[in-house]
Amino acid sequence: MQTAELVEGVLSGNRRLLARLITLIENEDPYAMEILSELFKHTGNAHILGVTGPPGSGKSTLVTRITAELRTRNKSVGIVCVDPSSPFTGGALLGDRIRMQEHTLDSDVFIRSMGTRGHLGGLSRATSDAVRAIDAFGKDIVIVETVGAGQSEVEVIEVAQTVIVTDVPGSGDDIQAIKAGIMEIADIFVVNKSDLAGADKKVVEINAMLDIDPNMGEWRPPVLLTNAVKGEGITELVDKIEEHMAFLKDSGLLATKGLQRSRDELEQLMEYKLTRELLAKLQGTPEYEDAIRRIANRDADPYTVAERLITEFLVRHRK
Amino acid sequence: MQTAELVEGVLSGNRRLLARLITLIENEDPYAMEILSELFKHTGNAHILGVTGPPGSGKSTLVTRITAELRTRNKSVGIVCVDPSSPFTGGALLGDRIRMQEHTLDSDVFIRSMGTRGHLGGLSRATSDAVRAIDAFGKDIVIVETVGAGQSEVEVIEVAQTVIVTDVPGSGDDIQAIKAGIMEIADIFVVNKSDLAGADKKVVEINAMLDIDPNMGEWRPPVLLTNAVKGEGITELVDKIEEHMAFLKDSGLLATKGLQRSRDELEQLMEYKLTRELLAKLQGTPEYEDAIRRIANRDADPYTVAERLITEFLVRHRK
Repeated sequence: MQTAELVEGVLSGNRRLLARLITLIENEDPYAMEILSELFKHTGNAHILGVTGPPGSGKSTLVTRITAELRTRNKSVGIVCVDPSSPFTGGALLGDRIRMQEHTLDSDVFIRSMGTRGHLGGLSRATSDAVRAIDAFGKDIVIVETVGAGQSEVEVIEVAQTVIVTDVPGSGDDIQAIKAGIMEIADIFVVNKSDLAGADKKVVEINAMLDIDPNMGEWRPPVLLTNAVKGEGITELVDKIEEHMAFLKDSGLLATKGLQRSRDELEQLMEYKLTRELLAKLQGTPEYEDAIRRIANRDADPYTVAERLITEFLVRHRK
Repeated sequence: MQTAELVEGVLSGNRRLLARLITLIENEDPYAMEILSELFKHTGNAHILGVTGPPGSGKSTLVTRITAELRTRNKSVGIVCVDPSSPFTGGALLGDRIRMQEHTLDSDVFIRSMGTRGHLGGLSRATSDAVRAIDAFGKDIVIVETVGAGQSEVEVIEVAQTVIVTDVPGSGDDIQAIKAGIMEIADIFVVNKSDLAGADKKVVEINAMLDIDPNMGEWRPPVLLTNAVKGEGITELVDKIEEHMAFLKDSGLLATKGLQRSRDELEQLMEYKLTRELLAKLQGTPEYEDAIRRIANRDADPYTVAERLITEFLVRHRK
């Protein structure tokens, strides 16, 4: 298939071709970058929403409800479900996604699961590229949902403009500890399963934590109670999501975030491409394999070898 | 301080200088690499043990008990506690480490906590370098304990030769899902808190999973019951740890793993150094800042810009 055909297909709303592009992205096919390069000028229109929080806090039900509410407001929705711990993609999260099936027949909702094919850095770049593809495809809102709540999720969620962090009543100290790095990225807190004992207490706790946050900016993250299973609190949540986007635009933060995001992405891309070029020259050559053996035998140290190979790589470009 | 002084200090067992070196490593001080380069030939003697598993599975108590048992067997121990979700280091995990205090007065035990200063990749490299420093320092066993159980922990734990995955009776489906990526790296499973209901059931479940593992090699991971708080099952666990190391040596897997580890590390180091060199040339120049602005405004796409900047960087070396 020609680049132009895939580019036009995605831009004209062909779901099958969008799915194909995301598969190319996952496979790190160089062809994907060509297409994304063409699509880039058609992006930047979607509101990107991140949803993260500890396992068992009802994220996927919440995402389903948010999607339903957005649809009643005539917004089209794309959903990327990211599971950093899973090497599987596509159908892997299907069990969890059964509740989302109500949307799969709705052509204004596009759902895709992504896992870790290679290393973690690959996943956050692939997620960012998939979100971009869905943005170019024309969805008004792209939701990135992550399973788990570790640092890896923080990196994946960086693509989002509005981040929702979910929690449940009575989650223990260990879960709290995990979330230490996640708290600071929240734009909206959601205490889900509001029917459980301790829901109000959890809201008070999060607010108390926000009261003493020395880095609080102009936007104080609201702490909302929801019951995603029953559909309670969802209207207010979607109102807050829209309010946050309006705040980002009015305050100029949207532009600032966009600039930072462009910087980060450019640097990640350069790192990726440059490393790939270097390794393509080295891997499989007898000298390289020998260097690795010498390191393993402690006859050479990796720091010195890395320095030497890089210098040789750079010098070779003189020819 | 001169390189030689630090190198000799670490080699002669000076704890204060070892701690200083690890701080240099955490700060990504280029000086650290110089020292590690000198220390490298004195490494490869320690048995590196990884301990990971879901929060609340009693990892730190278990590590404390393993350490005590190793001490009775006259092995010296180094412990690196890694928390990928925490930007804090050193004292941050102190609360959790109170149980380890029994060892802090024991000069044959060295304990250090590490968190995420920068990006995640940085953490796994820093952990690997810290383990190496402790190896050169002369500890017989270095234990790397990670908080949490996501993909980030999998990357951190790759430095280990023997990996213990902990679990507790009755952990729910969500926890299971998190661990999907972690199961396959286990050399030994530990079901801790054996006094809780469902401990035996959990052992059966893990064994059933192992029965159908198509990738099972010569070593079938044993599934052990422990009660770390009461100190039960620890002798058997440490026996298995020693047995696994003997297996690695006898089977030739230790050498294979060492070669793969050398390869991975060399590639990570080259990526790190090459990227740093590139960014040092670009960051802060008006052309670079302008390129970022153009990407943010969708006047240029990051894929094309990355390609162009890399080409220019490589060509510049011709002069």
